[in-house]
Amino acid sequence: MSTQTRGDFTLPGEAGYEQLTLELAKKWGADVIRDSDGTKLSPEIVEAGYRIYSTICIIREHNAFAEKHPDAQQQCFLCSDPVTAAGDTVVIAPLDGYYDEQFQLNDGPDALPYWQVWDRTADMEVPRGRWTYKDGKIIVAGCEPWHRYTASFLCWRIWEEINMYNHTTNHWTSEHLRQLDPRHPLAWEYLKDWLNRWCENNPQTNVIRLTSLFYNFVWIFGIDLRRRTRFVDWGSYDFTVSPAALAAFEREYGYALTAEDFIHQGRLQATHRPPTPHKRDYMDFIQRFVADKARELVEIIHSHGKQAYVFYDDSWVGMEPYGKYFASIGFDGLIKCVFSGFECRLCAGADVPVHELRFHPYLFPVGLGGLPTFMEGGHPEKDALDYWLHVRRALLRQSVDRIGLGGYLHLTEGFPEFTETIAQMADQFRQIKALHAHGAPAILPIRVAVLHTWGALRSWTLSGHFHETDGNILIHINEALSGLPVDVKFISFEDVKNGALKDTDVLINAGRAGDAWSGGDAWKDASLIAEITRFVYEGGCLVGAGEPSAAPDGDTCLRLAHIFGVDVDDGSYACHAPWAFDPEEAPFPVCREALAKKPGVRLTGPDTRVLCAADGLPQLTLHAFGQGQAAYLSGFAYSPAAARMLLDLLLYMTGQDGTAAAIAGHPLVEAAWYPADSTLAILNNSGEAIETTVSCPGGSVKVSLAPLETRIQKI
Amino acid sequence: MSTQTRGDFTLPGEAGYEQLTLELAKKWGADVIRDSDGTKLSPEIVEAGYRIYSTICIIREHNAFAEKHPDAQQQCFLCSDPVTAAGDTVVIAPLDGYYDEQFQLNDGPDALPYWQVWDRTADMEVPRGRWTYKDGKIIVAGCEPWHRYTASFLCWRIWEEINMYNHTTNHWTSEHLRQLDPRHPLAWEYLKDWLNRWCENNPQTNVIRLTSLFYNFVWIFGIDLRRRTRFVDWGSYDFTVSPAALAAFEREYGYALTAEDFIHQGRLQATHRPPTPHKRDYMDFIQRFVADKARELVEIIHSHGKQAYVFYDDSWVGMEPYGKYFASIGFDGLIKCVFSGFECRLCAGADVPVHELRFHPYLFPVGLGGLPTFMEGGHPEKDALDYWLHVRRALLRQSVDRIGLGGYLHLTEGFPEFTETIAQMADQFRQIKALHAHGAPAILPIRVAVLHTWGALRSWTLSGHFHETDGNILIHINEALSGLPVDVKFISFEDVKNGALKDTDVLINAGRAGDAWSGGDAWKDASLIAEITRFVYEGGCLVGAGEPSAAPDGDTCLRLAHIFGVDVDDGSYACHAPWAFDPEEAPFPVCREALAKKPGVRLTGPDTRVLCAADGLPQLTLHAFGQGQAAYLSGFAYSPAAARMLLDLLLYMTGQDGTAAAIAGHPLVEAAWYPADSTLAILNNSGEAIETTVSCPGGSVKVSLAPLETRIQKI
Repeated sequence: MSTQTRGDFTLPGEAGYEQLTLELAKKWGADVIRDSDGTKLSPEIVEAGYRIYSTICIIREHNAFAEKHPDAQQQCFLCSDPVTAAGDTVVIAPLDGYYDEQFQLNDGPDALPYWQVWDRTADMEVPRGRWTYKDGKIIVAGCEPWHRYTASFLCWRIWEEINMYNHTTNHWTSEHLRQLDPRHPLAWEYLKDWLNRWCENNPQTNVIRLTSLFYNFVWIFGIDLRRRTRFVDWGSYDFTVSPAALAAFEREYGYALTAEDFIHQGRLQATHRPPTPHKRDYMDFIQRFVADKARELVEIIHSHGKQAYVFYDDSWVGMEPYGKYFASIGFDGLIKCVFSGFECRLCAGADVPVHELRFHPYLFPVGLGGLPTFMEGGHPEKDALDYWLHVRRALLRQSVDRIGLGGYLHLTEGFPEFTETIAQMADQFRQIKALHAHGAPAILPIRVAVLHTWGALRSWTLSGHFHETDGNILIHINEALSGLPVDVKFISFEDVKNGALKDTDVLINAGRAGDAWSGGDAWKDASLIAEITRFVYEGGCLVGAGEPSAAPDGDTCLRLAHIFGVDVDDGSYACHAPWAFDPEEAPFPVCREALAKKPGVRLTGPDTRVLCAADGLPQLTLHAFGQGQAAYLSGFAYSPAAARMLLDLLLYMTGQDGTAAAIAGHPLVEAAWYPADSTLAILNNSGEAIETTVSCPGGSVKVSLAPLETRIQKI
Repeated sequence: MSTQTRGDFTLPGEAGYEQLTLELAKKWGADVIRDSDGTKLSPEIVEAGYRIYSTICIIREHNAFAEKHPDAQQQCFLCSDPVTAAGDTVVIAPLDGYYDEQFQLNDGPDALPYWQVWDRTADMEVPRGRWTYKDGKIIVAGCEPWHRYTASFLCWRIWEEINMYNHTTNHWTSEHLRQLDPRHPLAWEYLKDWLNRWCENNPQTNVIRLTSLFYNFVWIFGIDLRRRTRFVDWGSYDFTVSPAALAAFEREYGYALTAEDFIHQGRLQATHRPPTPHKRDYMDFIQRFVADKARELVEIIHSHGKQAYVFYDDSWVGMEPYGKYFASIGFDGLIKCVFSGFECRLCAGADVPVHELRFHPYLFPVGLGGLPTFMEGGHPEKDALDYWLHVRRALLRQSVDRIGLGGYLHLTEGFPEFTETIAQMADQFRQIKALHAHGAPAILPIRVAVLHTWGALRSWTLSGHFHETDGNILIHINEALSGLPVDVKFISFEDVKNGALKDTDVLINAGRAGDAWSGGDAWKDASLIAEITRFVYEGGCLVGAGEPSAAPDGDTCLRLAHIFGVDVDDGSYACHAPWAFDPEEAPFPVCREALAKKPGVRLTGPDTRVLCAADGLPQLTLHAFGQGQAAYLSGFAYSPAAARMLLDLLLYMTGQDGTAAAIAGHPLVEAAWYPADSTLAILNNSGEAIETTVSCPGGSVKVSLAPLETRIQKI
């Protein structure tokens, strides 16, 4: 079966497989053919009447230039492993333990002044006069015996990380690609010139698919296979550093950043942790730089009559779609690879003309987790369906313009169930898109604000994909919200203090004590506490999960414990008995599996209602506070049932029944109501057939759904 | 069967049950008869030829005096529940939520100046001029809207807490007893006079059994049965407070303590948490006061030709047996109630002539946990045996002089298995005591130092009995150590810095981040870290359990992570991958049940050996560091098998096989070797019969042990 519909689909073509390319383009209803990292399009494909996307990773594939200008390569700060002083001298080999194919010391005259040595035991920098650097080693004199010393240093990154990943994971054997820093003036002129020439030489290309811009997410490899990936942070700015960047920063901000601003006791500043003020400054500095340079590229592309789409993955650092400068770049489209619903919303909500999703699985022998996909033992059709089940609920809520795939098309041979599954998804996608085209779906009058350190900058995502961040409660909540018929925004603590709660019905804070999602020391601000206290007292709703509003040194562990009627003991409640409780019957179905058995959760008063508990630990509570109320969840693990529990909780707290949008009787069925077409989109999230009733402003309808069915039904 | 042996046994007699008293005295081989809280001895008992202990709780049973001098009653600081300011005024009813039969506001002219009002949101005291007190209420003006306010205040304690407990738990209906503060000059003169007269009137009493001294452990009741016990801390000094004590402190120390020194944001300063310097000063101040007053009582008792034993429980605060002033009091004996081995060692090691254990169960209808004992559904013989199994292993290691029971003797009627069990225990106790009398048992050359905030002051115990503190790893370790053939001492961080490690082979630190047992901020001291680093590097052994050496703001979460080769992620390792590992086969049997699945435990390097892991989390590791090594345990739950694992670990780390003392092949068999008698004491800790070999300096012997047997065997 081929698709019933056509268009809005980007197919990865592959030279040498021209017939397959054109066959699948037809089967999937493609209107665009693209190349991928590692594949080329042949003239036969390019001239077949499809629009053409051409993938460019602008900073890569310039090894000749990089070899001639090694100082144009990208850099970063690293920190050596600590060395314990058994005497008064310590010798540090800075790069010991790091992957020597990725890093090379930068001990040049502009880099060495940024190097530092630290006494980590005393948490003090060692004065410059007490250490020397010779033959690749640092010798520290006058050490405090038994203290531990580290060196912070700059190094060149001599292997572009995505290429490195493909070599080490997918056994590529081609030349190691290097990456250029657009901050290097010669390199920048070279890159612009190169892009101009590329555009001239590729008249058939309609859209240049930038993948992505300049700086990769941070991915630090170790030499030891027991810790090959030492550090990976999709939101980190550490790979943007260079002496030139540091000097420019100092000129602009009037103060100098040091190695320690990045190294941070060896921990680096991960996106999951609240940033220092210096880091905030540096991020803004880089964002402006990235936007400025990207704008130049887009202008070049436009000058050749082509469009510029940007792929939001890999080298995307500094161009966050919800960042202050993203819209100013002038991209024509944003392409987001999606495993999950939250990524769909992240793309759909960005301020850019075209929103396109690249579905998973990528057409590669193995998936990101290293498991087989398009090879023996793989089930790519199951993977695709699994991701689709996450994405389709988000697609109901907010329109995207296009979908597509990427990778080696020939790998689909021998997987006919996969090609069939994709054909069905493409049809469903186009049906849903058509509904949106006539008007937005009904939404509940519930304005949710997710509150964390980063606010809008990190709307929907934390730092990478779901499976990379699934130890964080918030990504599960974001995933649940991505398919709910409520308004969702992401706000920062500053936003709250600047009045953001006036447009908010339900405030959500979810994270672990001290992390960026809970907020850490931000909660030491009494004016923040007072503003949220006012908000709830006057009728607002508060939802907390995990260790919301946790900060040390308060009279409660959660700074909003008085609103939650719950606290999470960090040990400081020693000898204080908690309030005993009997759980009550919850007014809606509780998805127990979504909640955690979190030690230390305790009621702070007699009026907190416990809707679910395990082993004597409250898991889901409600607490009236003034005219408002608060819910506490000990944890939240995404599943369709968990998402429904969250919806039921929001409805219960705001006194609604859900029919203002569309709601099914069965908790594993979700629905959206498109009033312009008098049409319901109904999703069976269960692997079983379900009969249920869906209620919406258009009335109630009884439906019998096949397992996992997507039903589009006029009323 | 009656006992084979006689003496060293204190029997609780009971008027009205004279025949039973004398029968059981014979059956259990008693040489002393005592009264108990709630029982009397009749002349028939007193004149039966036994030595007589008479129980006196010196501060209680003086209601007439207390009514005439209500200002001689004891006091404490309490903190109101917080009140949120919805406007600019807040009204606080201080005692709301507290048990009104226990507390009464002290708003007298010497007390009110100590009252405080705090803005807990801003963590600032409200200036005195901004609040007024009227009709039992505090009115706070000029509040910050949406901040939370508390009042700290003094109150009288109008019901002696042990009496209150017996009323509320055991349904006593007699008059509520009050308690006098010996700091009140009139009360003190009255009490001394009363004691003198008591001694004169009770010539038959040989030993006055003080139970205990002046200040009860802190036990704060709430009005709501859902939180009847709001706070209980066996080590707290909060019940010693009064305006007189505060004034005397200020005179001596030159600075004034405030309510907040005690209230501590409403958390009080529990013994499980590191104390402030002010609290340390105050404790020393009270310890000297208690010792001075106790000395006066002992002198009165001695002047009547009687002996003074002190019962270490209930009102013992300030007379810690390992405190600086305990020996100066001049007690003739220390009586410790015991559920556990660590309590046996606590008693045995105190600097006092006679060490006596009061066994459990107490002859009461219900036990401390509220479960039936001497009533329908109770199995007192099983309880007694269970406690004995804990105590006997400690008795093998260090001698105590006497044992006994307490309570209502008549309750034993109908429990013949109990009386039989006690008879057997008494025999075994006397056999073991006889071995000690000839010379100490062999000990391994392993000097263990347990390191925590309190050091020697809180040797063996944390804050109360095992079942009250069993959420703390350290009490499990102390319990294990109490029966091992190693030297054990308890040292503080100051001790380490003052050279205590020179007498140490194995240093143990076990607790939770921030608690007094792990140490909290003490670990921010680089000189402490350096000294322990030196110690291990030069050949010492380090054992950590839970979150040893944890302190915030370091480059590692455990400050000794470099020695352990393990760290416990508090979230700050976000994005940093741990080292992968394969557990190796442990060189000794691992008691997996004793270890915890502790999230966040991670290796810090490739050389850490994992002996046990679960769900990918290291549970038991070893790491060589210089000439020494360190072991990390994710948890430790006491059992005989866990104790053996700890011994095996100590032996492995110190390169010994255990035969220098005595060691059994079977892990559930423990043994002690008494060289003077060429005798082995062998314990079967298992409910099954065991055949095994015991090796000691006297040779190896094969034994067949009955379930739970205590075997005394000459070689």
